[in-house]
Amino acid sequence: MQFSIKRSLFIKNLNDVQRAISSKTTIPILTGLKLVLTEAGLMLTGSDADISIEAFISADDEKNELEVGSTGSIVLPARFFGEIVKKLPEDTLTLEVKDNFQTELRSGPAAFTINGLDANNYPNLPVIDTDKQVVLDAAVLKQLIAQTVIAVSNQESRPILTGIHLVLANQELLAVATDSHRLSQRKIQLDIDADIHYDVIIPGKSLVELSRTLGDDVENVEMRIAENQVLFVAGTTSFYSRLLEGNYPETSRLIPTSSSTQVEFNAPQLLSAIERASLLSHESHNNVVKLALDPATNKVTIYGNSPDVGNVEESLNGQNLSGEELEISFNPDYMKDALRSFGQTEIRVAFTSALRPFTLVPTEDADHFIQLITPVRTF
Amino acid sequence: MQFSIKRSLFIKNLNDVQRAISSKTTIPILTGLKLVLTEAGLMLTGSDADISIEAFISADDEKNELEVGSTGSIVLPARFFGEIVKKLPEDTLTLEVKDNFQTELRSGPAAFTINGLDANNYPNLPVIDTDKQVVLDAAVLKQLIAQTVIAVSNQESRPILTGIHLVLANQELLAVATDSHRLSQRKIQLDIDADIHYDVIIPGKSLVELSRTLGDDVENVEMRIAENQVLFVAGTTSFYSRLLEGNYPETSRLIPTSSSTQVEFNAPQLLSAIERASLLSHESHNNVVKLALDPATNKVTIYGNSPDVGNVEESLNGQNLSGEELEISFNPDYMKDALRSFGQTEIRVAFTSALRPFTLVPTEDADHFIQLITPVRTF
Repeated sequence: MQFSIKRSLFIKNLNDVQRAISSKTTIPILTGLKLVLTEAGLMLTGSDADISIEAFISADDEKNELEVGSTGSIVLPARFFGEIVKKLPEDTLTLEVKDNFQTELRSGPAAFTINGLDANNYPNLPVIDTDKQVVLDAAVLKQLIAQTVIAVSNQESRPILTGIHLVLANQELLAVATDSHRLSQRKIQLDIDADIHYDVIIPGKSLVELSRTLGDDVENVEMRIAENQVLFVAGTTSFYSRLLEGNYPETSRLIPTSSSTQVEFNAPQLLSAIERASLLSHESHNNVVKLALDPATNKVTIYGNSPDVGNVEESLNGQNLSGEELEISFNPDYMKDALRSFGQTEIRVAFTSALRPFTLVPTEDADHFIQLITPVRTF
Repeated sequence: MQFSIKRSLFIKNLNDVQRAISSKTTIPILTGLKLVLTEAGLMLTGSDADISIEAFISADDEKNELEVGSTGSIVLPARFFGEIVKKLPEDTLTLEVKDNFQTELRSGPAAFTINGLDANNYPNLPVIDTDKQVVLDAAVLKQLIAQTVIAVSNQESRPILTGIHLVLANQELLAVATDSHRLSQRKIQLDIDADIHYDVIIPGKSLVELSRTLGDDVENVEMRIAENQVLFVAGTTSFYSRLLEGNYPETSRLIPTSSSTQVEFNAPQLLSAIERASLLSHESHNNVVKLALDPATNKVTIYGNSPDVGNVEESLNGQNLSGEELEISFNPDYMKDALRSFGQTEIRVAFTSALRPFTLVPTEDADHFIQLITPVRTF
């Protein structure tokens, strides 16, 4: 195996594949990066058994400057190899596998020899064999992930809640996550065959990594689902994740259909006020802020308190306040995550009672995105 | 005590003073920020007993927008107070001390009440009473600190080596640091009274913090030295540090006066090559790279090796190589620190033998700056 390649292009693909490689794996060869060179091009593979990423560098695409000397394969220590490639002195690098998997890496005056491993010992990636593929807009997919992943549980006690529940039916993609204290739900209309139907749970961590591999230059992502794996293809990069097994809890009935107190806020403004109030709640043992809504006087006030360091009180600029007077307490960190997911928009907050979950939706599009937060009992 | 002030200006001064405040102090009140308000202005003080920083905000300077309502003093929890001030919603903040040191902080719709402490319980800063002051160019002082602090020891076993030795004599400032493996020495000519003579050891950590408080807008720093304290005054900010007690080792005789092999490099180019070689040495248990200099063939080669992962060999672009053939091994991290301290310049490296310290100096100005590194015996 021998090739030369444009270093900057190689680094970009290496960075993508390295996201899947963990130094903590229990399978030693998975700390390595697999390189397979054919006449068609170079395939890089990284995996931590949960996630696998493949990047293909085509020999036909001139901008890759890939010159195939002789075909073959090798596994190289990923972290170490990546550090070397990033520090090489010239724009081009040459890699050649010699005897005993010893691999020579050259760039200008620098010549590295790296101990490689036999690529035949590298585990095979899952085969995903389906003709039902769904094409998603990359920007929309990234937004959907960012908006729902905040509610994913990081408690391994209920593994199913560490995933995002994706339901594809009736040309609509529904994504839900909940850690049982809060819930995020996002819907997207899709222009796909009406008979495509899936119901899967993808680990939240996988989707976060997927998001990171999707650069701003990626327009579309193709999603293919098999028995226990999902594959996302973006350009020449393939991203595999295992699926979580089990039944996701029924979440639709958790979302209240009516409310007794409503108010609207500018999301970034409310976020700033919550951040200030949480400075105090963080110094307290229960981390709770209180919101008081009084439609009679048209006043919304937020309170934070810590017996040790002090307290804060702030009048909020709530619009269209209506319904019943209410005092409600909640974890400000859940509220901050939820508010950040809305970006620079106006939101409507709807409350039922001081002990029932309340909801946040965009004022302009209440049907496709909802954040739900369970309050904290303080009395 | 009551005042209002421009928030951005207050934050800048707060940031400076907070450098001195540690949450790990054994004296509880030193986790606080002291505010003393007089008709003349507001003095902020922070201290960790080793370092103390004072910042004065003048009421006469209109750009501070300081409105003094009533004079007084208070100590407020520094970290917490700083976080609040940075998150306040408006450009102006108002602070008022009420009963029992309760302090009200207002900005727009937000009102914080913070539990303060009696400023009379805050330790007094040292009094530095000297008429012999030395004015230093701030940029030169920062460079001197950056160039010497790399060789300061962080081993508390020989506390004296955790400082930088400053000798002021014959209108020259000499700064030396050594951790016994390497040594950095810098000289500056000063236009001061010929009878000013000082010989002090300032903790390296103090000088690093001093460097950080000196923004690009600071032109000059006034240095005043007393029995066991040094004071640096930059504009309206005063920086106090304790001095280290004891005798600094005699270092001048450590610097070789002759050499048997000499070569010149571009500092950033050599740094890149050392960084590549150290990728391998870092994977090895002894962290050593080897330099081979052969004046007969005009070749300089660097080698790095790790039995586990591989090795590297690189030809270096050394100029004016002369003297005897030499192979020498050293810690590449010491070399990297030294090379970074030269910036974008050409340097001359002079060797005596494989076991004797070697030196690096700027080719253009060999008298005022020298880095010395002790090699590692590998045979």
